[in-house]
Amino acid sequence: MEFRELVRTRRCIRGFKDREVPDDLILELLDAARFAPSGGNCQPWHFYVIKNKDLLDQIHKKAYPASWFIEAPVAIVVCANIPESERRYGERGRNLYCIQDTAAAVQNILLCAKDLGLGGCWVGAFNEENLRELLGLKKDMRPVAIIPLGYPVSEPQAPKRKPIEEIATFI
Amino acid sequence: MEFRELVRTRRCIRGFKDREVPDDLILELLDAARFAPSGGNCQPWHFYVIKNKDLLDQIHKKAYPASWFIEAPVAIVVCANIPESERRYGERGRNLYCIQDTAAAVQNILLCAKDLGLGGCWVGAFNEENLRELLGLKKDMRPVAIIPLGYPVSEPQAPKRKPIEEIATFI
Repeated sequence: MEFRELVRTRRCIRGFKDREVPDDLILELLDAARFAPSGGNCQPWHFYVIKNKDLLDQIHKKAYPASWFIEAPVAIVVCANIPESERRYGERGRNLYCIQDTAAAVQNILLCAKDLGLGGCWVGAFNEENLRELLGLKKDMRPVAIIPLGYPVSEPQAPKRKPIEEIATFI
Repeated sequence: MEFRELVRTRRCIRGFKDREVPDDLILELLDAARFAPSGGNCQPWHFYVIKNKDLLDQIHKKAYPASWFIEAPVAIVVCANIPESERRYGERGRNLYCIQDTAAAVQNILLCAKDLGLGGCWVGAFNEENLRELLGLKKDMRPVAIIPLGYPVSEPQAPKRKPIEEIATFI
Protein backbone atom coordinates (compact mmCIF):
# COMPACT_ATOMS: atom_id res chain seq x y z
CA MET A 1 0.00 0.00 0.00
CA GLU A 2 1.13 3.58 -0.58
CA PHE A 3 2.73 4.92 2.58
CA ARG A 4 0.52 7.97 2.94
CA GLU A 5 -2.63 5.89 2.84
CA LEU A 6 -1.10 3.23 5.08
CA VAL A 7 -0.04 5.60 7.84
CA ARG A 8 -3.51 7.15 8.06
CA THR A 9 -5.51 3.92 7.93
CA ARG A 10 -3.47 1.84 10.39
CA ARG A 11 -5.55 1.12 13.47
CA CYS A 12 -5.01 -0.59 16.77
CA ILE A 13 -6.61 -4.02 16.25
CA ARG A 14 -7.98 -5.82 19.28
CA GLY A 15 -10.12 -8.53 17.68
CA PHE A 16 -8.73 -11.38 15.56
CA LYS A 17 -10.10 -14.13 13.33
CA ASP A 18 -9.42 -17.74 14.22
CA ARG A 19 -6.75 -18.02 11.55
CA GLU A 20 -3.03 -18.62 11.84
CA VAL A 21 -0.50 -16.07 10.62
CA PRO A 22 1.92 -17.77 8.18
CA ASP A 23 5.61 -17.67 9.02
CA ASP A 24 6.54 -15.87 5.78
CA LEU A 25 4.43 -12.91 6.92
CA ILE A 26 6.07 -12.96 10.35
CA LEU A 27 9.44 -12.81 8.59
CA GLU A 28 8.25 -9.78 6.61
CA LEU A 29 7.34 -8.06 9.87
CA LEU A 30 10.74 -8.79 11.39
CA ASP A 31 12.48 -7.60 8.25
CA ALA A 32 10.59 -4.29 8.43
CA ALA A 33 11.53 -4.07 12.12
CA ARG A 34 15.25 -4.49 11.53
CA PHE A 35 15.21 -1.69 8.95
CA ALA A 36 14.23 0.80 11.64
CA PRO A 37 16.94 3.37 12.35
CA SER A 38 18.95 3.08 15.56
CA GLY A 39 21.44 5.30 17.36
CA GLY A 40 24.92 4.49 16.03
CA ASN A 41 23.30 1.58 14.13
CA CYS A 42 23.49 -0.38 17.40
CA GLN A 43 20.24 -2.25 16.59
CA PRO A 44 19.49 -2.77 20.30
CA TRP A 45 16.53 -5.09 19.88
CA HIS A 46 15.38 -8.65 20.20
CA PHE A 47 12.02 -10.03 19.07
CA TYR A 48 10.32 -13.01 20.71
CA VAL A 49 7.75 -14.43 18.32
CA ILE A 50 5.30 -16.42 20.40
CA LYS A 51 2.85 -18.84 18.84
CA ASN A 52 2.89 -21.37 21.66
CA LYS A 53 -0.63 -21.38 23.04
CA ASP A 54 0.38 -22.31 26.59
CA LEU A 55 2.86 -19.48 26.77
CA LEU A 56 0.35 -17.01 25.32
CA ASP A 57 -2.09 -18.17 28.00
CA GLN A 58 0.52 -17.63 30.70
CA ILE A 59 1.29 -14.14 29.39
CA HIS A 60 -2.41 -13.40 29.41
CA LYS A 61 -2.77 -14.64 32.99
CA LYS A 62 0.33 -13.13 34.52
CA ALA A 63 1.35 -10.14 32.44
CA TYR A 64 -1.54 -8.76 30.40
CA PRO A 65 -5.01 -9.88 31.45
CA ALA A 66 -7.08 -8.02 28.82
CA SER A 67 -9.70 -10.43 27.50
CA TRP A 68 -9.11 -9.71 23.80
CA PHE A 69 -5.43 -10.70 24.04
CA ILE A 70 -6.28 -14.38 24.16
CA GLU A 71 -7.73 -14.27 20.63
CA ALA A 72 -4.40 -13.36 19.03
CA PRO A 73 -2.77 -16.32 17.23
CA VAL A 74 0.68 -14.79 17.66
CA ALA A 75 2.34 -12.08 19.71
CA ILE A 76 5.73 -10.45 19.28
CA VAL A 77 7.43 -9.35 22.47
CA VAL A 78 9.83 -6.55 21.60
CA CYS A 79 12.81 -6.22 23.92
CA ALA A 80 15.41 -3.51 24.28
CA ASN A 81 18.83 -5.18 24.30
CA ILE A 82 20.17 -2.53 26.65
CA PRO A 83 23.93 -3.24 26.58
CA GLU A 84 24.01 -2.69 22.81
CA SER A 85 23.18 1.00 23.40
CA GLU A 86 24.66 1.46 26.86
CA ARG A 87 28.10 0.24 25.83
CA ARG A 88 28.43 3.17 23.46
CA TYR A 89 26.19 5.85 24.94
CA GLY A 90 26.01 5.20 28.71
CA GLU A 91 22.93 6.37 30.60
CA ARG A 92 21.43 8.10 27.55
CA GLY A 93 21.76 4.84 25.62
CA ARG A 94 20.07 2.85 28.39
CA ASN A 95 17.17 5.18 29.14
CA LEU A 96 16.54 6.93 25.85
CA TYR A 97 18.10 5.55 22.66
CA CYS A 98 17.27 1.87 23.10
CA ILE A 99 13.69 2.82 24.01
CA GLN A 100 13.39 5.04 20.93
CA ASP A 101 15.04 2.54 18.59
CA THR A 102 12.76 -0.30 19.66
CA ALA A 103 9.74 2.03 19.38
CA ALA A 104 10.68 2.80 15.77
CA ALA A 105 10.91 -0.95 15.15
CA VAL A 106 7.45 -1.45 16.70
CA GLN A 107 6.00 1.24 14.46
CA ASN A 108 7.53 -0.47 11.40
CA ILE A 109 5.96 -3.77 12.48
CA LEU A 110 2.52 -2.17 12.94
CA LEU A 111 2.65 -0.44 9.55
CA CYS A 112 3.93 -3.59 7.86
CA ALA A 113 1.16 -5.65 9.49
CA LYS A 114 -1.48 -3.34 8.04
CA ASP A 115 0.24 -3.52 4.66
CA LEU A 116 0.05 -7.34 4.78
CA GLY A 117 -3.66 -7.42 5.69
CA LEU A 118 -2.88 -8.16 9.33
CA GLY A 119 -3.58 -6.08 12.39
CA GLY A 120 -1.75 -5.51 15.63
CA CYS A 121 -1.85 -3.41 18.73
CA TRP A 122 0.94 -1.75 20.69
CA VAL A 123 0.60 -3.03 24.24
CA GLY A 124 2.66 -1.19 26.84
CA ALA A 125 0.74 -1.63 30.07
CA PHE A 126 1.87 -5.14 30.93
CA ASN A 127 3.57 -6.51 34.03
CA GLU A 128 7.21 -6.25 33.05
CA GLU A 129 8.63 -8.45 35.80
CA ASN A 130 6.17 -11.28 35.22
CA LEU A 131 6.74 -11.19 31.46
CA ARG A 132 10.48 -11.19 32.01
CA GLU A 133 10.16 -14.24 34.20
CA LEU A 134 7.91 -16.12 31.76
CA LEU A 135 10.40 -15.59 28.93
CA GLY A 136 13.47 -16.18 31.11
CA LEU A 137 14.99 -12.87 30.08
CA LYS A 138 18.39 -11.72 31.26
CA LYS A 139 18.52 -8.57 33.38
CA ASP A 140 19.59 -6.35 30.52
CA MET A 141 16.95 -7.52 28.07
CA ARG A 142 13.98 -5.25 28.78
CA PRO A 143 10.54 -6.06 27.36
CA VAL A 144 9.18 -2.72 26.11
CA ALA A 145 6.16 -3.77 24.04
CA ILE A 146 3.90 -6.72 23.28
CA ILE A 147 2.34 -6.77 19.81
CA PRO A 148 -0.56 -9.25 19.53
CA LEU A 149 -1.14 -9.91 15.83
CA GLY A 150 -3.65 -11.60 13.59
CA TYR A 151 -6.25 -11.13 10.89
CA PRO A 152 -8.58 -8.32 12.02
CA VAL A 153 -12.24 -9.07 12.66
CA SER A 154 -13.05 -5.43 11.92
CA GLU A 155 -11.41 -2.05 11.42
CA PRO A 156 -12.19 0.34 14.25
CA GLN A 157 -12.77 4.04 13.61
CA ALA A 158 -9.76 6.31 13.88
CA PRO A 159 -9.39 7.79 17.36
CA LYS A 160 -9.54 11.56 17.19
CA ARG A 161 -6.25 13.34 16.55
CA LYS A 162 -5.25 16.76 17.81
CA PRO A 163 -5.14 19.33 15.00
CA ILE A 164 -1.71 20.34 13.68
CA GLU A 165 -2.14 23.92 14.99
CA GLU A 166 -2.28 22.51 18.50
CA ILE A 167 0.77 20.26 18.29
CA ALA A 168 3.14 22.32 16.14
CA THR A 169 4.93 25.65 16.43
CA PHE A 170 6.58 27.27 13.40
CA ILE A 171 9.68 29.37 14.04
CA MET B 1 5.87 4.74 -2.57
CA GLU B 2 4.90 1.21 -1.54
CA PHE B 3 5.59 0.73 2.16
CA ARG B 4 7.79 -2.31 1.81
CA GLU B 5 10.11 -0.53 -0.59
CA LEU B 6 10.01 2.65 1.45
CA VAL B 7 10.98 1.05 4.73
CA ARG B 8 14.00 -0.67 3.17
CA THR B 9 15.29 2.29 1.17
CA ARG B 10 14.95 5.02 3.82
CA ARG B 11 18.40 6.26 4.81
CA CYS B 12 19.77 8.70 7.31
CA ILE B 13 20.49 11.80 5.18
CA ARG B 14 23.27 14.13 6.31
CA GLY B 15 23.82 16.25 3.18
CA PHE B 16 21.25 18.64 1.73
CA LYS B 17 20.82 20.70 -1.43
CA ASP B 18 20.55 24.47 -1.14
CA ARG B 19 16.79 24.34 -1.68
CA GLU B 20 13.96 25.27 0.60
CA VAL B 21 11.37 22.71 1.74
CA PRO B 22 7.85 23.99 0.90
CA ASP B 23 5.39 24.35 3.76
CA ASP B 24 2.88 21.96 2.22
CA LEU B 25 5.45 19.17 2.51
CA ILE B 26 6.17 20.11 6.12
CA LEU B 27 2.45 19.83 6.81
CA GLU B 28 2.45 16.35 5.23
CA LEU B 29 5.23 15.33 7.61
CA LEU B 30 3.35 16.65 10.63
CA ASP B 31 0.19 14.91 9.51
CA ALA B 32 2.06 11.59 9.28
CA ALA B 33 3.52 12.27 12.73
CA ARG B 34 0.16 12.83 14.38
CA PHE B 35 -1.14 9.53 13.00
CA ALA B 36 1.42 7.64 15.07
CA PRO B 37 -0.14 5.51 17.79
CA SER B 38 0.14 6.66 21.39
CA GLY B 39 -0.64 5.11 24.76
CA GLY B 40 -4.27 5.86 25.60
CA ASN B 41 -4.32 8.12 22.52
CA CYS B 42 -2.67 10.79 24.72
CA GLN B 43 -0.69 12.17 21.75
CA PRO B 44 2.07 13.45 24.07
CA TRP B 45 4.03 15.40 21.47
CA HIS B 46 4.88 18.84 20.23
CA PHE B 47 6.79 19.67 17.06
CA TYR B 48 8.90 22.81 16.66
CA VAL B 49 9.43 23.45 12.96
CA ILE B 50 12.48 25.68 12.67
CA LYS B 51 13.35 27.49 9.45
CA ASN B 52 14.79 30.59 11.08
CA LYS B 53 18.44 30.64 10.06
CA ASP B 54 19.66 32.42 13.20
CA LEU B 55 17.99 29.88 15.45
CA LEU B 56 19.33 26.97 13.40
CA ASP B 57 22.80 28.53 13.76
CA GLN B 58 22.35 28.81 17.51
CA ILE B 59 21.21 25.19 17.75
CA HIS B 60 24.25 24.19 15.74
CA LYS B 61 26.57 26.16 18.00
CA LYS B 62 25.10 25.27 21.37
CA ALA B 63 23.27 21.97 21.05
CA TYR B 64 24.47 19.97 18.07
CA PRO B 65 27.80 21.04 16.56
CA ALA B 66 28.04 18.46 13.71
CA SER B 67 29.18 20.31 10.60
CA TRP B 68 26.56 18.84 8.26
CA PHE B 69 23.68 20.12 10.41
CA ILE B 70 24.15 23.66 9.17
CA GLU B 71 23.23 22.66 5.60
CA ALA B 72 19.68 21.66 6.53
CA PRO B 73 17.08 24.24 5.45
CA VAL B 74 14.69 23.13 8.18
CA ALA B 75 14.76 21.08 11.36
CA ILE B 76 11.93 19.65 13.39
CA VAL B 77 12.54 19.43 17.12
CA VAL B 78 10.31 16.70 18.50
CA CYS B 79 9.31 17.12 22.14
CA ALA B 80 7.65 14.76 24.56
CA ASN B 81 4.80 16.65 26.21
CA ILE B 82 5.31 14.72 29.43
CA PRO B 83 2.20 15.67 31.44
CA GLU B 84 -0.06 14.29 28.69
CA SER B 85 1.24 10.78 29.49
CA GLU B 86 2.14 11.22 33.14
CA ARG B 87 -1.33 12.43 34.12
CA ARG B 88 -2.77 9.08 33.13
CA TYR B 89 0.11 6.64 33.56
CA GLY B 90 2.43 8.10 36.21
CA GLU B 91 6.10 7.14 36.13
CA ARG B 92 5.63 4.68 33.26
CA GLY B 93 3.98 7.44 31.24
CA ARG B 94 6.82 9.87 31.93
CA ASN B 95 9.77 7.54 31.31
CA LEU B 96 8.45 5.06 28.79
CA TYR B 97 5.21 5.81 26.93
CA CYS B 98 5.87 9.42 25.96
CA ILE B 99 9.35 8.43 24.76
CA GLN B 100 7.92 5.55 22.71
CA ASP B 101 5.02 7.58 21.31
CA THR B 102 7.28 10.42 20.14
CA ALA B 103 9.70 7.86 18.65
CA ALA B 104 6.86 6.36 16.59
CA ALA B 105 6.03 9.89 15.40
CA VAL B 106 9.69 10.46 14.44
CA GLN B 107 9.72 7.23 12.46
CA ASN B 108 6.55 8.32 10.61
CA ILE B 109 8.21 11.65 9.78
CA LEU B 110 11.35 9.94 8.44
CA LEU B 111 9.37 7.51 6.30
CA CYS B 112 7.10 10.29 5.04
CA ALA B 113 10.14 12.46 4.19
CA LYS B 114 11.57 9.68 2.03
CA ASP B 115 8.17 9.22 0.40
CA LEU B 116 8.11 12.94 -0.50
CA GLY B 117 11.62 12.93 -1.99
CA LEU B 118 13.10 14.54 1.11
CA GLY B 119 15.62 13.16 3.54
CA GLY B 120 16.13 13.48 7.24
CA CYS B 121 18.22 12.13 10.05
CA TRP B 122 17.25 11.17 13.60
CA VAL B 123 19.54 13.18 15.85
CA GLY B 124 19.56 12.13 19.49
CA ALA B 125 23.00 13.14 20.77
CA PHE B 126 22.34 16.84 21.32
CA ASN B 127 22.71 18.99 24.41
CA GLU B 128 19.25 18.79 25.87
CA GLU B 129 19.56 21.65 28.34
CA ASN B 130 20.96 24.09 25.79
CA LEU B 131 18.31 23.19 23.25
CA ARG B 132 15.62 23.60 25.87
CA GLU B 133 16.95 27.05 26.71
CA LEU B 134 17.16 28.16 23.06
CA LEU B 135 13.53 27.18 22.48
CA GLY B 136 12.31 28.49 25.84
CA LEU B 137 10.74 25.13 26.69
CA LYS B 138 8.81 24.54 29.87
CA LYS B 139 10.19 21.97 32.30
CA ASP B 140 7.79 19.25 31.22
CA MET B 141 8.36 19.63 27.49
CA ARG B 142 11.34 17.36 26.81
CA PRO B 143 13.18 17.57 23.49
CA VAL B 144 13.79 13.95 22.46
CA ALA B 145 14.91 14.27 18.83
CA ILE B 146 16.05 16.79 16.25
CA ILE B 147 15.24 15.95 12.63
CA PRO B 148 17.21 18.07 10.14
CA LEU B 149 15.43 17.83 6.78
CA GLY B 150 15.98 18.81 3.18
CA TYR B 151 16.51 17.52 -0.34
CA PRO B 152 19.25 14.88 -0.22
CA VAL B 153 22.52 15.48 -2.06
CA SER B 154 22.99 11.72 -2.31
CA GLU B 155 21.64 8.45 -0.97
CA PRO B 156 24.12 6.70 1.31
CA GLN B 157 24.49 2.93 1.31
CA ALA B 158 22.40 0.99 3.80
CA PRO B 159 24.28 0.36 7.05
CA LYS B 160 24.58 -3.34 7.68
CA ARG B 161 21.70 -4.96 9.52
CA LYS B 162 21.90 -7.94 11.87
CA PRO B 163 20.34 -11.06 10.33
CA ILE B 164 16.89 -12.08 11.56
CA GLU B 165 18.28 -15.29 13.12
CA GLU B 166 20.36 -13.14 15.45
CA ILE B 167 17.62 -10.78 16.59
CA ALA B 168 14.60 -13.07 16.79
CA THR B 169 13.59 -16.11 18.82
CA PHE B 170 10.60 -18.23 17.83
CA ILE B 171 8.65 -19.91 20.63
